[in-house]
Amino acid sequence: MDYAGRQRRAAEAIQKTHIDVLLVTHLPNIQYLSGFTGSAAILVFAGERWTLFTDGRYAEQARAQVRGARVVIAKGPVLTAAANWLSKRQSGVVGIEAEQMTVSYRSALKRLLHSNTRVRETRTIVEQLRVIKDPSELALIRKSVNLGCKLLDPAIRALKPGVPEIRVAAEIEYAARKGGASGMSFETIVAAGARSALPHGVASDAAIPRKGFVVMDFGVILAHYCSDMTRTVHVGRVPPVNRRVYDAVRDAQQAAIDAVGPGVAIGQVDAAARRVLKRAGLAKYFTHSTGHGVGLEIHEQPRIASGIKEVLLPGMVITIEPGAYLPGQGGVRIEDMVLVTERGCDVLTRATKELIVID
Amino acid sequence: MDYAGRQRRAAEAIQKTHIDVLLVTHLPNIQYLSGFTGSAAILVFAGERWTLFTDGRYAEQARAQVRGARVVIAKGPVLTAAANWLSKRQSGVVGIEAEQMTVSYRSALKRLLHSNTRVRETRTIVEQLRVIKDPSELALIRKSVNLGCKLLDPAIRALKPGVPEIRVAAEIEYAARKGGASGMSFETIVAAGARSALPHGVASDAAIPRKGFVVMDFGVILAHYCSDMTRTVHVGRVPPVNRRVYDAVRDAQQAAIDAVGPGVAIGQVDAAARRVLKRAGLAKYFTHSTGHGVGLEIHEQPRIASGIKEVLLPGMVITIEPGAYLPGQGGVRIEDMVLVTERGCDVLTRATKELIVID
Repeated sequence: MDYAGRQRRAAEAIQKTHIDVLLVTHLPNIQYLSGFTGSAAILVFAGERWTLFTDGRYAEQARAQVRGARVVIAKGPVLTAAANWLSKRQSGVVGIEAEQMTVSYRSALKRLLHSNTRVRETRTIVEQLRVIKDPSELALIRKSVNLGCKLLDPAIRALKPGVPEIRVAAEIEYAARKGGASGMSFETIVAAGARSALPHGVASDAAIPRKGFVVMDFGVILAHYCSDMTRTVHVGRVPPVNRRVYDAVRDAQQAAIDAVGPGVAIGQVDAAARRVLKRAGLAKYFTHSTGHGVGLEIHEQPRIASGIKEVLLPGMVITIEPGAYLPGQGGVRIEDMVLVTERGCDVLTRATKELIVID
Repeated sequence: MDYAGRQRRAAEAIQKTHIDVLLVTHLPNIQYLSGFTGSAAILVFAGERWTLFTDGRYAEQARAQVRGARVVIAKGPVLTAAANWLSKRQSGVVGIEAEQMTVSYRSALKRLLHSNTRVRETRTIVEQLRVIKDPSELALIRKSVNLGCKLLDPAIRALKPGVPEIRVAAEIEYAARKGGASGMSFETIVAAGARSALPHGVASDAAIPRKGFVVMDFGVILAHYCSDMTRTVHVGRVPPVNRRVYDAVRDAQQAAIDAVGPGVAIGQVDAAARRVLKRAGLAKYFTHSTGHGVGLEIHEQPRIASGIKEVLLPGMVITIEPGAYLPGQGGVRIEDMVLVTERGCDVLTRATKELIVID
């Protein structure tokens, strides 16, 4: 991982804001900038340098992992150590990661800092850098996506009428762990029959009915990187209306993928999916946004939603996941992870999107 | 669940503080007070009444689940709806849950409220009520603990020299899911050999060595309630030093359990464990606190640690989990969940604490 490059770009981004110091407290940001994966740390940028504060439990780990930052092992709480250190340096305006830090934590920080130190809220300084994945990250993301794809077969083998949704989730997660995942990137969704119309129907103890859609949305964490995919299968004979809904969602998903490329306004990708669903009379059943970035966290920048003018850039990794949910009847969602390239895009998720029918 | 009683007790606790309104934003607190389990909600206490704000995705679910609170379905963001509603009522001092709310969220709230509305930080108002479990909660906690106990056998069957730790975790989690768990209550710890000396050594791809301790610490979430247990087993012939460490930790754990009872200062429970380890010359290797409350969340009040004068009360559910970690050599931890009763305590975790040796 190119920690030096990341730290340089972060320093540049910090210098463009009106802060003298940045307190990085969001753990994925700390990992991104310094390599440290422990659960208690503050990474401080001050006076052009990076200093990582952690506690005695992580002394060895910090020395082994951290790149480009001085490591300080706090005797007491990490926040106290970092604040005392800053107070000695008359540090001016201290930026905090306002979207992650709790109100309590900020109050404790204020109490510990010099009374003439100002604390200023910042937003997504590091997250904006994380949007563009570098080659070493892409290699890990591809592995995470590939493991995700391998979970579809065990899921389909387990999926039978009468089997509880949660049992299908069990098979997915068991295969993930056997494949080396440290965990799932979010609570596995297996939503069958009428429940497939719930966009976030986590696996329940409801039994798979004898007919209808089953939406399966899952992802793994492998070597710290998340994957995310959705496939919808059908149990029993497929009525024409279900076939129509499935095909429309599949076409909408493909249209959105076809729209992905460097310099494309994000809203255009979302619009491409909606246009296809509108033509099929299903626009009002597509009730969420089209996708989101994925990386060290399952939900990252950018959001792929209606009206967003920000453009896609090479190196972004996003999901494309339109759906249609007919209340009380059933729903379909199809989701791939996609890498924006110099010329267009690369679909990372390599699993069939033909409708699989389970008899 | 006795939502009316919980709401009455919360109202009494709020009236003792200097706030006119409480904004409950921490989801486990919302579930505890109202029954609602969706992922987007604010529960407001104002003018002696409870109002739950959620969005359209949860309209049906809120109507089915919520008890004792009016439900408002927000058209836009839930925070905007709640703040606008409050602004119309000239609500005085608005208390926020400062340990959960982010700085960003508080700033957004401040912008939305009347400029003459004051926002005041509160801490653990609802969490303090949750400390005493009611009978319906205890029934669920017992089920969650019992499922946890059933995971030990599959773990031990999987555990062999050469098998990766993560594979043992896979078997634990697979059995949990098959038993109906919606997930694990924290990242499963399987730490073998020298890694067993890491108090938080989550399962890695390291292979189980031919000899030494294996610490397994895991818990499930079943019907929203968490369980938490640790057992340490030994691979290969047990050298006398390891036997001594194991016996000392087991005796320390038993001493702490024996100390648990209503009216007992929490620090005394912690001290009981440390006293035994000190006698065995292991005090300095017990580097964490003795336990914590468990319920809707894996870590709840009270903390069972050194010097705490607060007393135990009937209905509290806590872990008792002393350990000893010899750097570079290995470690032992034994953990049960314990219910404080009128007369003493009830050990909920029913699994052997004899040292299991795997050949």
